[in-house]
Amino acid sequence: MSLGVCYFPEHWPSERWEADVRRMADLGLEHVRMAEFSWSELEPKRGEFEFGWLETALDHIDERGMEAVLCTPTATPPRWLVDEHPGMLQEEPDGTTRQFGSRRHYCFNSPAYAEETDRIVTRMAERFADHPAVAGWQTDNEFGCHGTVRCYCEDCSAAFSEWLRERYGDVDALNDAWGTAFWSQRYNDFEQVEPPRHTVAEHHPSLLLDYARFASDSVVDYNDRQVELLRAANDDWFVTHNFMGHFSALDSYDVSESLDFASWDSYPTGHSQREGDDPAVEDLLVGDPDVIGLNHDLYRSVTDEPFWVMEQQPGDVNWPPYSTQPADGAMRLWAHHAVAHGADVVSYFRWRRCRFGQEQYHAGLLKADGTPDRGHDEAARAADELGSLPGLDGNEASVALLHEYDNLWALEAQPHAPEFDYWDHLETYYRALRARGVAVDVVPPTRDLEPYAAVVAPTLHLVDDDVAARLGTYVEGGGELLLTMRSGVKDRANALLNEPAPGPLSGLVGATVEDWGTPHPEMERELRYDGDPFEYRVWNERLSTDAALAVGEYRTGRAAGHPAITANAVGDGHARYCGVWPGDSLADAIVSDLLADAGVPATAEPLPPRVRVVERDGLTWVTNFSDRELLVKPPDGASMLQGSETVPGYGLAVVDAPLTDVGVEHR
Amino acid sequence: MSLGVCYFPEHWPSERWEADVRRMADLGLEHVRMAEFSWSELEPKRGEFEFGWLETALDHIDERGMEAVLCTPTATPPRWLVDEHPGMLQEEPDGTTRQFGSRRHYCFNSPAYAEETDRIVTRMAERFADHPAVAGWQTDNEFGCHGTVRCYCEDCSAAFSEWLRERYGDVDALNDAWGTAFWSQRYNDFEQVEPPRHTVAEHHPSLLLDYARFASDSVVDYNDRQVELLRAANDDWFVTHNFMGHFSALDSYDVSESLDFASWDSYPTGHSQREGDDPAVEDLLVGDPDVIGLNHDLYRSVTDEPFWVMEQQPGDVNWPPYSTQPADGAMRLWAHHAVAHGADVVSYFRWRRCRFGQEQYHAGLLKADGTPDRGHDEAARAADELGSLPGLDGNEASVALLHEYDNLWALEAQPHAPEFDYWDHLETYYRALRARGVAVDVVPPTRDLEPYAAVVAPTLHLVDDDVAARLGTYVEGGGELLLTMRSGVKDRANALLNEPAPGPLSGLVGATVEDWGTPHPEMERELRYDGDPFEYRVWNERLSTDAALAVGEYRTGRAAGHPAITANAVGDGHARYCGVWPGDSLADAIVSDLLADAGVPATAEPLPPRVRVVERDGLTWVTNFSDRELLVKPPDGASMLQGSETVPGYGLAVVDAPLTDVGVEHR
Amino acid sequence: MSLGVCYFPEHWPSERWEADVRRMADLGLEHVRMAEFSWSELEPKRGEFEFGWLETALDHIDERGMEAVLCTPTATPPRWLVDEHPGMLQEEPDGTTRQFGSRRHYCFNSPAYAEETDRIVTRMAERFADHPAVAGWQTDNEFGCHGTVRCYCEDCSAAFSEWLRERYGDVDALNDAWGTAFWSQRYNDFEQVEPPRHTVAEHHPSLLLDYARFASDSVVDYNDRQVELLRAANDDWFVTHNFMGHFSALDSYDVSESLDFASWDSYPTGHSQREGDDPAVEDLLVGDPDVIGLNHDLYRSVTDEPFWVMEQQPGDVNWPPYSTQPADGAMRLWAHHAVAHGADVVSYFRWRRCRFGQEQYHAGLLKADGTPDRGHDEAARAADELGSLPGLDGNEASVALLHEYDNLWALEAQPHAPEFDYWDHLETYYRALRARGVAVDVVPPTRDLEPYAAVVAPTLHLVDDDVAARLGTYVEGGGELLLTMRSGVKDRANALLNEPAPGPLSGLVGATVEDWGTPHPEMERELRYDGDPFEYRVWNERLSTDAALAVGEYRTGRAAGHPAITANAVGDGHARYCGVWPGDSLADAIVSDLLADAGVPATAEPLPPRVRVVERDGLTWVTNFSDRELLVKPPDGASMLQGSETVPGYGLAVVDAPLTDVGVEHR
Repeated sequence: MSLGVCYFPEHWPSERWEADVRRMADLGLEHVRMAEFSWSELEPKRGEFEFGWLETALDHIDERGMEAVLCTPTATPPRWLVDEHPGMLQEEPDGTTRQFGSRRHYCFNSPAYAEETDRIVTRMAERFADHPAVAGWQTDNEFGCHGTVRCYCEDCSAAFSEWLRERYGDVDALNDAWGTAFWSQRYNDFEQVEPPRHTVAEHHPSLLLDYARFASDSVVDYNDRQVELLRAANDDWFVTHNFMGHFSALDSYDVSESLDFASWDSYPTGHSQREGDDPAVEDLLVGDPDVIGLNHDLYRSVTDEPFWVMEQQPGDVNWPPYSTQPADGAMRLWAHHAVAHGADVVSYFRWRRCRFGQEQYHAGLLKADGTPDRGHDEAARAADELGSLPGLDGNEASVALLHEYDNLWALEAQPHAPEFDYWDHLETYYRALRARGVAVDVVPPTRDLEPYAAVVAPTLHLVDDDVAARLGTYVEGGGELLLTMRSGVKDRANALLNEPAPGPLSGLVGATVEDWGTPHPEMERELRYDGDPFEYRVWNERLSTDAALAVGEYRTGRAAGHPAITANAVGDGHARYCGVWPGDSLADAIVSDLLADAGVPATAEPLPPRVRVVERDGLTWVTNFSDRELLVKPPDGASMLQGSETVPGYGLAVVDAPLTDVGVEHR
Repeated sequence: MSLGVCYFPEHWPSERWEADVRRMADLGLEHVRMAEFSWSELEPKRGEFEFGWLETALDHIDERGMEAVLCTPTATPPRWLVDEHPGMLQEEPDGTTRQFGSRRHYCFNSPAYAEETDRIVTRMAERFADHPAVAGWQTDNEFGCHGTVRCYCEDCSAAFSEWLRERYGDVDALNDAWGTAFWSQRYNDFEQVEPPRHTVAEHHPSLLLDYARFASDSVVDYNDRQVELLRAANDDWFVTHNFMGHFSALDSYDVSESLDFASWDSYPTGHSQREGDDPAVEDLLVGDPDVIGLNHDLYRSVTDEPFWVMEQQPGDVNWPPYSTQPADGAMRLWAHHAVAHGADVVSYFRWRRCRFGQEQYHAGLLKADGTPDRGHDEAARAADELGSLPGLDGNEASVALLHEYDNLWALEAQPHAPEFDYWDHLETYYRALRARGVAVDVVPPTRDLEPYAAVVAPTLHLVDDDVAARLGTYVEGGGELLLTMRSGVKDRANALLNEPAPGPLSGLVGATVEDWGTPHPEMERELRYDGDPFEYRVWNERLSTDAALAVGEYRTGRAAGHPAITANAVGDGHARYCGVWPGDSLADAIVSDLLADAGVPATAEPLPPRVRVVERDGLTWVTNFSDRELLVKPPDGASMLQGSETVPGYGLAVVDAPLTDVGVEHR
Repeated sequence: MSLGVCYFPEHWPSERWEADVRRMADLGLEHVRMAEFSWSELEPKRGEFEFGWLETALDHIDERGMEAVLCTPTATPPRWLVDEHPGMLQEEPDGTTRQFGSRRHYCFNSPAYAEETDRIVTRMAERFADHPAVAGWQTDNEFGCHGTVRCYCEDCSAAFSEWLRERYGDVDALNDAWGTAFWSQRYNDFEQVEPPRHTVAEHHPSLLLDYARFASDSVVDYNDRQVELLRAANDDWFVTHNFMGHFSALDSYDVSESLDFASWDSYPTGHSQREGDDPAVEDLLVGDPDVIGLNHDLYRSVTDEPFWVMEQQPGDVNWPPYSTQPADGAMRLWAHHAVAHGADVVSYFRWRRCRFGQEQYHAGLLKADGTPDRGHDEAARAADELGSLPGLDGNEASVALLHEYDNLWALEAQPHAPEFDYWDHLETYYRALRARGVAVDVVPPTRDLEPYAAVVAPTLHLVDDDVAARLGTYVEGGGELLLTMRSGVKDRANALLNEPAPGPLSGLVGATVEDWGTPHPEMERELRYDGDPFEYRVWNERLSTDAALAVGEYRTGRAAGHPAITANAVGDGHARYCGVWPGDSLADAIVSDLLADAGVPATAEPLPPRVRVVERDGLTWVTNFSDRELLVKPPDGASMLQGSETVPGYGLAVVDAPLTDVGVEHR
């Protein structure tokens, strides 16, 4: 439950470092991350290492009793290195080189760069293996940022062929699995298979899915190698990586297998201006608590350990279209919200606004002139508040939200409606759960589901018998399962199953999909659930029930009168199936029924908009992401550890009581 | 008057083929198209031919008394062939290669690919020359799909130089015709002329037009060669090609010269989601009868023979933004509508939804699991209904709509208003004619016009004296001619004429164009025609009358009070000129007057919206593309061959009576 | 005060030339510009020069007593020359070649093309050194049109390295100035620095700014060389260049240093359809008087001499999305408006619509068939009217609007709000000044400011102590200065200053910037100034006052109650600071107060919308860019040199009286 900061001593005169670190300590910060873009400062020319400056900075940190997180500097190979190995640069699908001049210009499959990586990581790890300030490491920085997980160069092409050979063994196995008889795409050997470069029409969906897997695996391998070298130098260090929010191209479960815990970089108002959206003003000021929370819960779940927010937005940021100033209180609110969701450390990015380079319009806790900026005082307050809390165990959740990158990738290649987005769909259900005060783990279908009273599984698009059997066992044993549209459609190679959807899940669901469509926004999209009318969007499936009960049916369109939502009693549990993408009200209705059957405690009414209540280790955080005042009703005798019963807009309270005993309403 | 289907035996285990073909026969299908993307299955490695599987499929077809249409598999050269001849791949204007991985990746001007084409076509034609099931051939598949008529590679550059040499003989003839004195573009030899690759500003319009012609000619030559080889193997075969709807880059008249008849691929709801449009719900459910009908009439007119719909949409399709499900009845309605317009065969695409590859989201008559999908039962009903009709002769039309690709290409290069689209403009007049129940041939200006009581000639942009003289003779002889804005502006080299528009047509029109403009949508666009106010759009011309009568004049803008529409009595006929792009009401008014003068029978009022009535060989189809019920009033004693006097939404009726005797109204 | 025309004899048969020139003379034109795209006509093959045709044309001009402006034909190197030197073509950031086929395809840093340039300029200059008709030259044509100032080829890369070496001397000086410690961007030598080619994220802002400077300097050097060669041939010639309106990539002050005077090409209605705008109908018909006027004033100010409009729109133009026809009277109005702003010559582009090539949809004074088009009669009238005026001295302005391309380039790289555009911001203040009838010079901050009663300095983003000191001295001495948001933020290398904004201007302003933001359009943006409420847009700064008085404060948002606008009395003058981008009403209020303090005469109320009044040498032009009738009230006894007291829509009047004595109102 402590705070940290990201620091770039190399951007400032060395005379300032001691004062900087002292001020960090005075502010109450306990962790300092450093060095993630510093290669050209650490090795300005080949073999000429300059580690002294970093050691000096570490010494200052050590003197103040703080801990340092070092980063491998591989996200930004220096100019001289690129000049020696021009082939290490990434390429676009059309063959254009991704040049030096910004960051992340290296290819994960470049043999030359792999060697250089080994060299710098080893040198750096050995150099600081015994420094007392170094608590652990971050590998690289934000793998895949700016669309760089997928590269299309010759090294990737060769590595992809090799990856396919390992996966399929025989090229005809690939031909059969993919179905290369379509459009004359048969391969005679693995070398013939190339990355999905520029073509006049779409690529084969099986190629696209395997390329997505291969590209993610390439990053996993690259990361694993770094982790291994770091652990070889000092096995007491923790190793983490800073993931990004709502990031699609990288399987964070796979990457995390070799990590001690996961971290992520949280920029709440930056994410409010996603393309095409017309954001709410409150989103622009503090972000959406569920967009943030879903990422907290994901990165907590990937290792099932408390996580870090490695970069926490400190004020205005440079990269959204509009650089809005966050609301007063936002920087404090975010820190508490993260801790409530299971963060052990929240580290602001950055200590001081940088005078030069691409992020001049990105705030720090200090302004460029060294005076405190807005985030500074909020960080100090949060440090004080969080420091006063008792040590906390991890979070517990009784509901699992299933998430699998293979499904994301398959649907990304074939959305079949402009609005179809895997994250948005997940969010629909996550929001419904959180609006009822329910804690959620975000786990893959292969995780042990027994601990969960209910499981929500949006769009299990690729399903094999194993997953189907595990879900069946779960329900038989009393589990409450909600499956949704577009599930059980494909096999693992991204080919359609030879049976109606939801394929191997059909028995469990007790219904099958007759046909599907993506209704145009101009068309009416209404159904009746439990007697009430609701709106849906993006997707509909006409269902045919077998054992299941139709609990929702269409009111409009060609499928009017046909089932849209079903429920099936199986063993001691139920399997529900929702054949549409529900609107928020419908999602709430379905999820409420699920929770009731599962006996999961939930609020009687949805929480006030933009207000979320989160419990961790017996303490309950009331976080107010709205601008309206809240009234908190703690149970008799419970103490308010932070805040009072009146919580102002963008404020918070911490109550020493379980969530279900705490009442919350907008004034 | 029969139905067919497109079948890919290579996508399914051979054990299923016999059952598949039997089910086709049971359904009432009589034609099976195969093999258009099967090269890698027919020749998996160079010289290793595997024709057996196709022969087996043909044997099954023969056994059921059905006919097969085979396709040359040239649209998708296999990977091994591309690896041997990487230079055969197409290139973008910026030099990017159009890679293997989708389809249509070969260049029409690649000498290496021409040789490979000869080889596979010859081998395949000879192999099946005597098979009794093979009735004819489709060359390749959808020439030019995905923007591939125009390639910008070195082979094209060399072929273009040669094409220009043949056309102009001497490079100074080209310099003079094009006007290369502009912007210092003089060429010293033909080799210097390159395809219109990436430049910072627009290309020379004469180069653009000649490149469009050259590219179209390249496809014509490529097709002709295939046709010749096929006929050499068996002269009894018919040869056709499957064109696309509203396709711009290829001159379908030229391609069709060597064909027995034309075919086209009709996807009515796919075309409803054209970019920027906000489609009507009924368009999303069944498409627009005039968009479909214009293509039917075009592809019937190119050879003046009954045509085939080689691919008829069978249900949902994968390529529009939204995959809407067609209305119930749509698949039957489309088959009848096509036959009414002159189709002899309507062939659904495809038999069964493919489990793998790029078209998984494209329906078939069967689902992927082999059970009937929505189109199946509608196809069965249509097969039954069409089979019960008498044999029908071709269609007759008393109005010609003139269409010339040279004009399309010239205007595509210089639209001079964002909304200017040649097809849309044609459609404006086509719709007005069809809304009055009038049959239309879509023919080039060089076709014999004598048979037509009226001729509508939208935008004869490039006009030479010959066309002008032919139109003059037509009107002199009693023809009723409607010319429209942007006519008689350019010579054949795409240079402005040395006289006011409509150039050589001015005498016939009896008026000239003073100036023109494209009014911005913010500006008022009104005129008065025959005393009534109307709206126009996109383009206006201030006319100066000579012999002609001003029948329409502007009410707004700088040209207020000046003539906008004229009529000129010449010999026994009239030449009308419309100097604007009319709104629908104005188009109806102008066309109605034209029809009245020409004595062409037309309905007293426009037909109800989305309802069309089409006569073929004495039978009249009432096709209801609206969701409202229709009332059909047949003449006394006429029998209803299909349907009753009440036609439901998306339904139809066939009346054994001429069109002009059949009344139709929305209930 | 005379008119001219752009003529292309090479586009027409030589038999027409004499008649053409006679008609020009009859119309009242006195100047003829020729030859700017004629290289392939002057030298059809290497070394085979054909100057005879141009001499013939010049002879005709001489015979009629007119003057010719010749152009170096370097904007369009011919095909044969490109074939000899393919490396001279420009390249895109992704490496794509900018090919032959339009214009401006040469790289300013190509050594080969520099040699060719010297050769053709020298030959041409020597050939016509003694021709009596040649009064002067235009270098090249519209440097940088179509985005060609910045090229990314290898020649540019080498030249950029050299340019940096000259600027920084030592590569570590560059590393320090830019701050290459950011993202590991340290360079070891100048050769390593490349143009900002394709990268996955943004480039370093210091690299971007220096590349913008380098690219502009490359054009300056290229132009200087041509000027030198022309002067060497005949030192009596004037030399000018035709700039473009609102053009960003080229520093017109730098280019103009070697010119006798500047020219620009004015296309008022073309500029009305800028991307994303929804233009007013009147803008489509005559353009915006302030958009035009700002360019007139800029290109007058660059050399502080009367300027030429080298190309004046003659009617419809081809390049905007819609080719609207200008209003009747527009072509006359523009000529007068230009002369009022300080033009000595207004030259219509072009004499006759060209039959061929890329500009067929661009009007001339004659139509393509040689008959007069709309511009012809208006030009005749304007020639007559302007010819009847006395000779006029240059213009005088009491207000300077500061403009610096370095600021434009820095902000273009980091706008930090989608709407942030340097020209728009300048225009906001320019419009406010002109709406009060106030004359404006547009000068760089290094110009002597002493002559100006007031200085408006929008966004002095990069400021060094020297500029700060000069502005301080100006205010101390009684000057009235208005500074605006985003000033004093960066140093000359585009790094943030080590002090709060406005940096070295803080003392003068008496206030500093606490923080800033770009409010999203969904957020309220209101402030109070002088007691009244106003709207602002795009940007806000929370100010902290020191010596200054807060004259405006925020009413909404996080900064509510904090200062937004300040005024500081310094010596005998005042320094105002506006921390927002004002809406039009607020700009008017602030500017009015500034003018009042400066004692600059201004109208009591803003002029009627789209009506502008401009004084030159004691004469006052009333120009009516609205469609409503105006009432002009001249002082007693003043004569109306043109027009009457009632000025129709798009009309004008010239009053022999100073501006401040002339009343104007919409009827």
